[in-house]
Amino acid sequence: MPGQTEGKRNSMQSFYEKLIKDYDLNLNHSGVSGERLAKRLYELSKIGSMESGGVTRPGYSNEEKKAKELVIGWMKEAGLSVRTDGAGNVFGRMEGRTSGSAIGSGSHVDSVPNGGNFDGPLGVLAALEVVQAWKAEGFVPNKPYEVAIFSDEEGSRFKVGLTGSRAYMGQVTREELENFRDQDGKTFEEVIGEYGSSVDAYLGANKEKTEIEAFVEVHIEQGKILERDGQPVGIVSGIAGPAWVKVSFIGEAGHAGNTPMIGRKDAVVAAGMFVQTIETLPKQVSNTAVATVGKMDIQPNGVNVIAQQVDMIVDIRDIHEDSRDRLVSLIIDAANKISTERQIEVKININSKIMPIPISEDLQERLRGALNKYDIEPIRIPSGAGHDSMILGTEIPVAMIFVRSKDGISHNPREWTDLNDCVKAVHVLKAFLEDLGEKGVSR
Amino acid sequence: MPGQTEGKRNSMQSFYEKLIKDYDLNLNHSGVSGERLAKRLYELSKIGSMESGGVTRPGYSNEEKKAKELVIGWMKEAGLSVRTDGAGNVFGRMEGRTSGSAIGSGSHVDSVPNGGNFDGPLGVLAALEVVQAWKAEGFVPNKPYEVAIFSDEEGSRFKVGLTGSRAYMGQVTREELENFRDQDGKTFEEVIGEYGSSVDAYLGANKEKTEIEAFVEVHIEQGKILERDGQPVGIVSGIAGPAWVKVSFIGEAGHAGNTPMIGRKDAVVAAGMFVQTIETLPKQVSNTAVATVGKMDIQPNGVNVIAQQVDMIVDIRDIHEDSRDRLVSLIIDAANKISTERQIEVKININSKIMPIPISEDLQERLRGALNKYDIEPIRIPSGAGHDSMILGTEIPVAMIFVRSKDGISHNPREWTDLNDCVKAVHVLKAFLEDLGEKGVSR
Repeated sequence: MPGQTEGKRNSMQSFYEKLIKDYDLNLNHSGVSGERLAKRLYELSKIGSMESGGVTRPGYSNEEKKAKELVIGWMKEAGLSVRTDGAGNVFGRMEGRTSGSAIGSGSHVDSVPNGGNFDGPLGVLAALEVVQAWKAEGFVPNKPYEVAIFSDEEGSRFKVGLTGSRAYMGQVTREELENFRDQDGKTFEEVIGEYGSSVDAYLGANKEKTEIEAFVEVHIEQGKILERDGQPVGIVSGIAGPAWVKVSFIGEAGHAGNTPMIGRKDAVVAAGMFVQTIETLPKQVSNTAVATVGKMDIQPNGVNVIAQQVDMIVDIRDIHEDSRDRLVSLIIDAANKISTERQIEVKININSKIMPIPISEDLQERLRGALNKYDIEPIRIPSGAGHDSMILGTEIPVAMIFVRSKDGISHNPREWTDLNDCVKAVHVLKAFLEDLGEKGVSR
Repeated sequence: MPGQTEGKRNSMQSFYEKLIKDYDLNLNHSGVSGERLAKRLYELSKIGSMESGGVTRPGYSNEEKKAKELVIGWMKEAGLSVRTDGAGNVFGRMEGRTSGSAIGSGSHVDSVPNGGNFDGPLGVLAALEVVQAWKAEGFVPNKPYEVAIFSDEEGSRFKVGLTGSRAYMGQVTREELENFRDQDGKTFEEVIGEYGSSVDAYLGANKEKTEIEAFVEVHIEQGKILERDGQPVGIVSGIAGPAWVKVSFIGEAGHAGNTPMIGRKDAVVAAGMFVQTIETLPKQVSNTAVATVGKMDIQPNGVNVIAQQVDMIVDIRDIHEDSRDRLVSLIIDAANKISTERQIEVKININSKIMPIPISEDLQERLRGALNKYDIEPIRIPSGAGHDSMILGTEIPVAMIFVRSKDGISHNPREWTDLNDCVKAVHVLKAFLEDLGEKGVSR
């Protein structure tokens, strides 16, 4: 899997060339360099690179560590003082004109298996590029600034994500870690030990952190809204917390030929009505809510057997907890209604509910100001996926800047964001951070 | 799997006792013996018996052969002259008062894995019980009579059924046999060789057969209509031929959180609309037509991924080819309509179409006469499942007598038919065969 670092020079070279090919040199201003950003994206893409052009850098792997070390080198070149906590999170700190709480920005450098080259790295490198620009301009921000790399955001190692940012916020217990096993059956204790830390140090990460006043994350959209609306950068209006509701319809199996249509208890037909109803419900609660049945398992799944049982998981999201929970209720009501109407048993279980993270109107408004400065139309987009900001946002104000994704493709070697859009995001981030640094952030 | 013949005496004993427990001795008349029928069902149930109380007798296995040998012994005791053809089909012949074409009756003695004790054996033993009754009464039928056991009806060995009756009717080619592989990877040539025949002899079975004027099969209903209507025996109105239509909706995968509801191409929702529509269509063509989606495969089947593709097989049946084919068209139209409305790609492929076998009004009317004789209300039931009669029916007149199944359960150790109902079926079969023998059957 990982470790195919050598011998891919040609395809990697072409990744850099592809990035730089249509770059608009007019974007190189205010100390920002598109070439530097492209070169760094390219250097990171070589770590854990795959034949496909994608990368495999699982959390707490050698590849993730190498990627962090590469960025640490750049941080030091840029004059940041670098520290690493017990969870492997990296912080490059620039002191401000005043002491006190800092403003943070960053993301992650791990990836899903055969993932893309922008999901994570762009957020880290954009945060670092702002430092480069400030250095070039001789600018010192009012407040201290920290560039963060959080460990294991994707969770591809233990199928539980956000491991670094959750340790940073003190949201992981020793008991939870004891259940972690990677695909080779290794425990978290073994993995973090091999990585050069320990469970105790991991759990202590929260105590080592400096005071952060607000955190901003640049991330590719992983959706198609900016592409559709022709904008390079957008304002994240909130981070949707998913609720996963398991719904099972339990009917009666029967021979597909010998059972008349009347009186059937066909679990597939009940499930069909249900998914069709679900599609109509999100708009009843908000224009950002979504609900999806992506997983459906049919038993016995035989061509000539009426399905006895269909198990589905409904993924329900919105950026506000109240509307998300109203949607959960509507969907549960719909399942019960179908159960009653069709006289078919239904079992409903709320498997998980993650709290949505709102983004304050104040921060969205100030980000709009930064977009205005560059004549970017301020499109507001809910983030459907979770991010490190979602974890930090449980306690401190967060903001997110989305960057246009080609065809919305992510977690895939074909993930792509034009360098022009990446650099525009750096400019927006820089203006926004300068504003936050000057005026501070009210909780 | 098979071969658990020994050491199951207790559970087998209880099968016999369960059969005989509520037997109405008044049904022992006209030479028919319920005890003999029960004893023979019980003796057959010991071959390939399972812990569950069910049986495993795959086609062309030692268990199927032993079951045939047991019945051959009974045939000979009853004075029948027995022959076996190259496909392993067994025929016990009783000469009539006149020579010429014969009337046939029978079924099969193979089973699905862990199948029941009535599906197949009841049809063979009922046909033989009529001979016993005629012997007891000193009755000789007008036309010759043949009791048939067809090989491998269920097709659990090669996943292709009706292997015996299709050879008998000359409907199998050498090319088709070359593709047969059982679960151990054995070819048909190897299996039929171990069974004591050969591919050449199998393919020659059609040439060895005597002229049959009509064939009657007694079989458990494997449905719930007779149970619902409180009748022991029913008239099969036709044998539904299934058409299997593969329908795939191909949409666009996307992140369940980052893709707004509007503009989605969700293959699961399209599939949901489709199965719901299918349920409404059979009644538009006839009151015997049925259509079922029992098998549905979702890709990638991830909780937080909008489904890219759903593959379904629609099982469409009716006893008349024209209405069955009209239903196929309606279902294809529905798939295309959903594809257009939702702008989602659809692929449609008719995987197989088996011709329905009508049962002549004349034979149904004469069977009604036999039911009348025993005060049984003449319920007409389409046979949704295929049977050996379906194969014979492609060339000669066939009739089928269904016997009430408890809860409609079949292909399962819990398959059950009361001995009283079995014996009533024998009486009806006997009366019907006597009528056919006397008056003949017009094509």
